[in-house]
Amino acid sequence: MTARFIVLEGIEGTGKSTHAAYLADWLAKQGQPAVAAREPGGTPLGERLRALLLDPGISPMPPQAEALLMFAARSASISEVILPALASGAWVVCDRFVESSYAYQAYGRGVPIEQVRALDRQIVGKLRPDLTVILDAPPELGLARKAGPEKKDRFEQESLKFFERVRQGYLQRAREGGGRYIVVDASRKLAEVRKDLVTAVGQLLGHKASRDN
Amino acid sequence: MTARFIVLEGIEGTGKSTHAAYLADWLAKQGQPAVAAREPGGTPLGERLRALLLDPGISPMPPQAEALLMFAARSASISEVILPALASGAWVVCDRFVESSYAYQAYGRGVPIEQVRALDRQIVGKLRPDLTVILDAPPELGLARKAGPEKKDRFEQESLKFFERVRQGYLQRAREGGGRYIVVDASRKLAEVRKDLVTAVGQLLGHKASRDN
Repeated sequence: MTARFIVLEGIEGTGKSTHAAYLADWLAKQGQPAVAAREPGGTPLGERLRALLLDPGISPMPPQAEALLMFAARSASISEVILPALASGAWVVCDRFVESSYAYQAYGRGVPIEQVRALDRQIVGKLRPDLTVILDAPPELGLARKAGPEKKDRFEQESLKFFERVRQGYLQRAREGGGRYIVVDASRKLAEVRKDLVTAVGQLLGHKASRDN
Repeated sequence: MTARFIVLEGIEGTGKSTHAAYLADWLAKQGQPAVAAREPGGTPLGERLRALLLDPGISPMPPQAEALLMFAARSASISEVILPALASGAWVVCDRFVESSYAYQAYGRGVPIEQVRALDRQIVGKLRPDLTVILDAPPELGLARKAGPEKKDRFEQESLKFFERVRQGYLQRAREGGGRYIVVDASRKLAEVRKDLVTAVGQLLGHKASRDN
């Protein structure tokens, strides 16, 4: 398999979807077909679950149920989007993947991390991103960027304390995860963050070229 | 805890919801407040998931995703309906519970039974029905009873072979489950089936009376 699987993670307002779209575009310009995906979502089941997961009207949502729904959406995303794209030789740039379940449901909501790990084994199995980028920024900044006239979704309504736990969860996972994780300071200007992302992904491209040729 | 938790299980067309409503009514007449519940459903989250799970438009639905959604709905049902009812002293008569996940997703769809068992431990934990009644009938009969002018839901569209696997799954689980399971021949007339159910539930009432007095 020559195509790579890249994931952008981070709390609200760190620019994940903007950067994911940019990277897919940038890869295409390097002659690498790339698919931009997102979680939850990207499939008929996933988009229905996304609407349900973000709906502030669904209250209470038991934290364990939230975790199960995220993995259900992921299961459809893996079988219908990610694996077919990789098999066809396209890169995949995904806005959120399994690290969101550790950060939000385990660190943020308090679901026992062992339960998230068990779901990870069951649903994701051996599929591991070649690179997971944690876009890191203080919650105050991310939420301020997200603030707009629209009604807040069920996650955006959470407290700063919640997002601080999520952020620390991401950083902890990156520390434990080793070389396939990088943490990028997303409190800087978009163009500066983008430069770091292109450098990191460019290295993967370079490795690929030197390995494949 | 004096209230009891009763579950009716079985394939489509075996009369579960009719009998559950009747039993809740019958218990009320014996001076026992009773709540009739159903799965998936019975909570805001559960009813949204029910609509999604039955929608023939959601295709393909990965079998593992189906299992996760069923347990997500169950998690809400347990915390918002079943446990509060039992804590208030009401009996609960539930149209489907965890045996449906073993029968449909493991035996029917082929999800590894160990995965269903892991979810059962995580989500249901120690909450076990005092009585699970398997309403047993040949799939041909159940599906014929269900046949009507309405469009078939995602499960009703399945093959007879699928429902035969589900049925055998139920029977297998009942054999392994011991005294808290009974199998009732639901191919008979409604009134005859009802008589068996009232006898079985009446025994629980009697045990309760002799234990509590």
